[in-house]
Amino acid sequence: MFEDVQESVREQQYGIAAKLLKSRGVDINEVKSKLAALKIEVPSWGFSRAGTRFAVYTDGTEPQTIEGRIAAAGLCHKLTGATPSVALAIPRDGEDCDLLQKLLSANGLAAGAINSDSFNPRQSPLDYRLRWGSLTNPIAEVRRAALQHHLDCVQVMCKLGSRNFSLWLHDGTNSAGQLSLFEQGRLLEESLRQLYAALTGNQQIFIEYKFFEPGFYATAIADWGWAYALAQKLGDRAKVLVDMGHHPLGTNIEQIVANLQMLGKLGGFHFNDKKYADDDLATGSVDPFQLFRIFNVLVEADLSGLQPIGDVAFMIDESHCLKDPLEEMIEAVDNIQRAYVLALSVDRRTWEDAQTKVDPELGDQILKNAFFDTPANAILQTSRLERGLPADPITECRARSSKQRGQSAG
Amino acid sequence: MFEDVQESVREQQYGIAAKLLKSRGVDINEVKSKLAALKIEVPSWGFSRAGTRFAVYTDGTEPQTIEGRIAAAGLCHKLTGATPSVALAIPRDGEDCDLLQKLLSANGLAAGAINSDSFNPRQSPLDYRLRWGSLTNPIAEVRRAALQHHLDCVQVMCKLGSRNFSLWLHDGTNSAGQLSLFEQGRLLEESLRQLYAALTGNQQIFIEYKFFEPGFYATAIADWGWAYALAQKLGDRAKVLVDMGHHPLGTNIEQIVANLQMLGKLGGFHFNDKKYADDDLATGSVDPFQLFRIFNVLVEADLSGLQPIGDVAFMIDESHCLKDPLEEMIEAVDNIQRAYVLALSVDRRTWEDAQTKVDPELGDQILKNAFFDTPANAILQTSRLERGLPADPITECRARSSKQRGQSAG
Amino acid sequence: MFEDVQESVREQQYGIAAKLLKSRGVDINEVKSKLAALKIEVPSWGFSRAGTRFAVYTDGTEPQTIEGRIAAAGLCHKLTGATPSVALAIPRDGEDCDLLQKLLSANGLAAGAINSDSFNPRQSPLDYRLRWGSLTNPIAEVRRAALQHHLDCVQVMCKLGSRNFSLWLHDGTNSAGQLSLFEQGRLLEESLRQLYAALTGNQQIFIEYKFFEPGFYATAIADWGWAYALAQKLGDRAKVLVDMGHHPLGTNIEQIVANLQMLGKLGGFHFNDKKYADDDLATGSVDPFQLFRIFNVLVEADLSGLQPIGDVAFMIDESHCLKDPLEEMIEAVDNIQRAYVLALSVDRRTWEDAQTKVDPELGDQILKNAFFDTPANAILQTSRLERGLPADPITECRARSSKQRGQSAG
Amino acid sequence: MFEDVQESVREQQYGIAAKLLKSRGVDINEVKSKLAALKIEVPSWGFSRAGTRFAVYTDGTEPQTIEGRIAAAGLCHKLTGATPSVALAIPRDGEDCDLLQKLLSANGLAAGAINSDSFNPRQSPLDYRLRWGSLTNPIAEVRRAALQHHLDCVQVMCKLGSRNFSLWLHDGTNSAGQLSLFEQGRLLEESLRQLYAALTGNQQIFIEYKFFEPGFYATAIADWGWAYALAQKLGDRAKVLVDMGHHPLGTNIEQIVANLQMLGKLGGFHFNDKKYADDDLATGSVDPFQLFRIFNVLVEADLSGLQPIGDVAFMIDESHCLKDPLEEMIEAVDNIQRAYVLALSVDRRTWEDAQTKVDPELGDQILKNAFFDTPANAILQTSRLERGLPADPITECRARSSKQRGQSAG
Repeated sequence: MFEDVQESVREQQYGIAAKLLKSRGVDINEVKSKLAALKIEVPSWGFSRAGTRFAVYTDGTEPQTIEGRIAAAGLCHKLTGATPSVALAIPRDGEDCDLLQKLLSANGLAAGAINSDSFNPRQSPLDYRLRWGSLTNPIAEVRRAALQHHLDCVQVMCKLGSRNFSLWLHDGTNSAGQLSLFEQGRLLEESLRQLYAALTGNQQIFIEYKFFEPGFYATAIADWGWAYALAQKLGDRAKVLVDMGHHPLGTNIEQIVANLQMLGKLGGFHFNDKKYADDDLATGSVDPFQLFRIFNVLVEADLSGLQPIGDVAFMIDESHCLKDPLEEMIEAVDNIQRAYVLALSVDRRTWEDAQTKVDPELGDQILKNAFFDTPANAILQTSRLERGLPADPITECRARSSKQRGQSAG
Repeated sequence: MFEDVQESVREQQYGIAAKLLKSRGVDINEVKSKLAALKIEVPSWGFSRAGTRFAVYTDGTEPQTIEGRIAAAGLCHKLTGATPSVALAIPRDGEDCDLLQKLLSANGLAAGAINSDSFNPRQSPLDYRLRWGSLTNPIAEVRRAALQHHLDCVQVMCKLGSRNFSLWLHDGTNSAGQLSLFEQGRLLEESLRQLYAALTGNQQIFIEYKFFEPGFYATAIADWGWAYALAQKLGDRAKVLVDMGHHPLGTNIEQIVANLQMLGKLGGFHFNDKKYADDDLATGSVDPFQLFRIFNVLVEADLSGLQPIGDVAFMIDESHCLKDPLEEMIEAVDNIQRAYVLALSVDRRTWEDAQTKVDPELGDQILKNAFFDTPANAILQTSRLERGLPADPITECRARSSKQRGQSAG
Repeated sequence: MFEDVQESVREQQYGIAAKLLKSRGVDINEVKSKLAALKIEVPSWGFSRAGTRFAVYTDGTEPQTIEGRIAAAGLCHKLTGATPSVALAIPRDGEDCDLLQKLLSANGLAAGAINSDSFNPRQSPLDYRLRWGSLTNPIAEVRRAALQHHLDCVQVMCKLGSRNFSLWLHDGTNSAGQLSLFEQGRLLEESLRQLYAALTGNQQIFIEYKFFEPGFYATAIADWGWAYALAQKLGDRAKVLVDMGHHPLGTNIEQIVANLQMLGKLGGFHFNDKKYADDDLATGSVDPFQLFRIFNVLVEADLSGLQPIGDVAFMIDESHCLKDPLEEMIEAVDNIQRAYVLALSVDRRTWEDAQTKVDPELGDQILKNAFFDTPANAILQTSRLERGLPADPITECRARSSKQRGQSAG
Repeated sequence: MFEDVQESVREQQYGIAAKLLKSRGVDINEVKSKLAALKIEVPSWGFSRAGTRFAVYTDGTEPQTIEGRIAAAGLCHKLTGATPSVALAIPRDGEDCDLLQKLLSANGLAAGAINSDSFNPRQSPLDYRLRWGSLTNPIAEVRRAALQHHLDCVQVMCKLGSRNFSLWLHDGTNSAGQLSLFEQGRLLEESLRQLYAALTGNQQIFIEYKFFEPGFYATAIADWGWAYALAQKLGDRAKVLVDMGHHPLGTNIEQIVANLQMLGKLGGFHFNDKKYADDDLATGSVDPFQLFRIFNVLVEADLSGLQPIGDVAFMIDESHCLKDPLEEMIEAVDNIQRAYVLALSVDRRTWEDAQTKVDPELGDQILKNAFFDTPANAILQTSRLERGLPADPITECRARSSKQRGQSAG
């Protein structure tokens, strides 16, 4: 939080927090132990400099190689203690699994979800015709090559011991005349069935949906409804991935989360934030109250036994265009942790009473109390210090990261 | 179309239309016979004056009674030959089934879908507490009464020989603290299962979804995904109803339609148009090209045998705030018919070729040719005249309706 | 905040707050004195039960008369010490100025802005034809009567000593064919010039804009750009009123506020919150971080001397459909006060440094510190207690309001 | 239109068109002469292959050099007779004005608007720090260099005889903490004043606004209101540029156009179409009825003398990601021409009557008649043939373009 808070102030605030939480029926030690158990996955690509379709402005400090990206992820985990796995993008991160495994191990990390960059040509027939899609490409040769690339990603999973396949397709059309929606649907289902059949062991596939972009008329999987329908057709290994930025403006995302949990199909998240479209800003930076509401749903599902929070994959997926990528990644981790702590701080018994009595004013005040009147930083920082971590990882990062990254990055 | 087109011009245009359609592989006689088979259901409430939350401006010409509304529906059918059934709202239209049946018969009409006005108190315990919802109301007594009202609606269906139950609930919350999303979901599913169990014969239930309003935080069924999941849980009698105005801005509605058809769950439509939210404007009046694209999807599904167009329920649901209700209803019917004729006029063989060759420029030109270069009015008017109907039903309505409505309205 | 915080905890938190603020270069006493100076205007209609176009669910406890509404406003001011004036709607609140003045005085209140309910017929020729608009009505007779109603409102201002005319028109069209946009613009400007000419003394007019509703094609004043252009044409007495709910989704409202301040044309606010459209929910209840950002802008303008915050009219305009109207009004006041306190708690010197050094990560952390790590409730409650007000006005309201309202309401 | 229409059919349709238009008080010869006078400017970048932030899929047929792009523009003008000028982007198109002039002349073209690609580094200090903006960059050195680049563009205008400066800035922020909105506004105004002062002769500057992207929190000029306010401050040479894709969803663009015309500040258009955000699809391809409504406004302003249509700059600005760039450009030209012809075909006298009588049903039918019942292709094609142009420029392009482009492109 970049703030020069004296240690004595933090201790005072922590003492207040313990009292407040107790009055809400919450044990602060349990909050800290749940917080310590929250694992957040960081994407290798998030440590590079991202840009927009207009320009990418690199300043030379960004890691250019897989070595640099994984080293940055390692530093992120050292500073936060919260990001033990790295999502990889294939082929962007290379396909030398031995090298990848070596780099991960050297940085104390594990392989996270494998993301098939469907838009990124690798297989030989994957030329400019990838413009027309990957798994839904109307040209059989290109479609087969795209499928093969996805099957290769499953092999990468096997070699790296990765459990989750994050499937986001760039497939979509730009006009109604381009492709029949039925044909688009048929090709998608056919390809997905073949991909699904290749999964083994405890592997699972997360189907991501997106309202638009890069397709500007009809994306192949435009909303959670279609992702859910596909996941259900495929079977138990298939779940739905919620990317925060992939919804129409105004969408009640926490309701989609709750729905998917009730249907047994919530796989996890691609965390980021948005003000307009798929802005890919730092998670919780635009609408922190929404992030809190989402965790409020997840905590409720955890407490009721519907879905343990440990079964949900929390993955960050942001585009770091302006700020330092590593710092913005840590900002996101911090925001996610805060939202979780605040959701854990809700006085649930009183809230349930308020609901039963249909007293929404009271119900809202209870959520507001948790959000606005919980000294979350004191809890977060105390928890970090107790685990031997820096209280404020961004400040620590500023002190250490340039040197660290200078040594490892390519 | 209000236009003083000479008969000779229409004949010329019709001749051109026949040639153009033939060149696209389409038989104009088949178009006319399909058009004649298209049945559009009109809602009783659409003949009343509607308003906004600010005001309802009645001018005294609007039907005030069920007699007047059904008489207006009868006139609509006489003028268009296309609207043989009337959707009824219970309890707004009363529950005297004998009277309703008599009125319908007297006007040459059949009972269409039954709409339970969930927000409209009728059962004794349905007082202001209906504010908190109907089938998801947290107060058991109110929830039971609301369910009973829905079961009563099934009885009305039985008595009137109505096949379809249109289920739109006003249920929703205005803040996150009001009600747990899981509890909202649980209550909804529980109530729906009881309602579903009451259906008999060939009855089916159409589950409608809505992005927002009157709930401003979380509507009980906010999108097609949740409506589909519920319909699937309930069984074969349950399908999804697509109301044009109930989506976030930008939503690709025709893709939702195609998805539901591929999933075997498209029940039908509530037709209207929107520019901003649930504006309930005349169907096809804001974005006629979207309406055309929807019919393009429906025609493709019909031709491929996926879902015969006759299995889709076409129902109008508009709010007639400014224009004359009957005239605006006929405007909607006219727009729907035109969109259907234009979709039937697509050169499908060439379009399929264009898709196979991945030639989107050609594909789009084919749709544009159908939309912009088909003399649809000549086809529409010729078809009407051949069936003994007025060529231009709104003009005819102006000549006749005031007298007609004066005689029948209450 | 409905929370049973022990007095000792509040004192501890207040002490921490003082230290934190000091470390940010902020004097907590100055924060409290600015907070005490913040005046928020409440609308008489906000104490009634509101509804949607579907239904209004009254439970009998809502004030039915102007006496009851003003008594509720009086109680609101007693409990919060922050709402000394009441916005009135004419003709809804009646036009007996002597009575209004007597009621206001009896409750320790002053007349706030006068709102001409343009959609509400009063003048004799204002019949159903008001459907076509008020000051832009194409029918000269209706337009003149609507103008006369607005001129009468100026007379009410004179009699009650009200300074501000809040102009929101229901005028708008539902289709492109209804009225030429140029004619709509011409009629509007012509009417506004006549209304403007009637202002005297220190009176000013606030021009409100709205994206849509009740017009669903083109509202007469759809955005701040047109409101600004009109205000500029009219003269110095005309300013722009920002209603939070009247923007397209995603709109950066604080930027509009800053723009209007730079142009010297920010009149004030109609505060509420929205998730979808003009939801009229409690201010700050959906997106509290947005409300904070808006106050952050206002505080910056105040500190820089661009526009003293005391020159901005802070008015609440919400629809209380579900919660108790008085309680929800107090919730809004509390949220506005908190946002102001948080904005006053920003470490501005460090933030300016961060901007100069183009260090957005630091800049964002500073805002986040203010938002998440300021014990705002302790400041709010201490300030209230020091002024002899209840620490938690909603809890106090629950204890007192039913009795109080029972005595005064009609 | 790619349709094999027999010549005799076109002649018949043209005859019908003449009769229909006459019945609406419109002379078909005047329509054709107005159509012939409509000049549409094409952008050099629109003949290249565009992409998204994910990928650009070139197939090798796209022009890679300025020679190729201007040759393609030349072919576009040969085929349509409607695009005599080319908008240039500096520095993308190079700054060798002699070469540019030579290429333009050789292809029968003139220089159109000069677009300063603010995001594109050229001046030496314009390195990665351009990330923070151009004319609003907080770093004085970078800001000055960006201003110098803009002043250089004015020199290019002078040399090429270009009249219009199209100003679209990539400036904007990604978070509230990055930069004060007031400072952003101050820097912008200061820079613009310097740029404005450099204009000479009949030069004018068009200020473009954009809702978002690449800035995802606050773009420097986010809406027409701010663009208008700036244009007004600057003076008569400054006008506003309306890019179709730069508005929030649902925005009534034609109303903004009418507003700007009433304020004397409409400079022109960047034509494209959108379904979601700044999709940059072919003009009129997603919502052709909106394009018609816009031209309906422009025609009304032309007829009333408010702003001659010849004073409006019609410029295409699209991203051709999937279709052949030249073909999609011609598609856009065709759609714009059709919209203009349809708007010219409105029965204005009857429409004015309908407005005066407040008969919106009739008013809408009149617009619908023009849109749906005018044989526009017959008029378009006849007009083209009479001017020695191919009836269907895309078909002709397919026959000729590959050869033509093969000869000229680099």
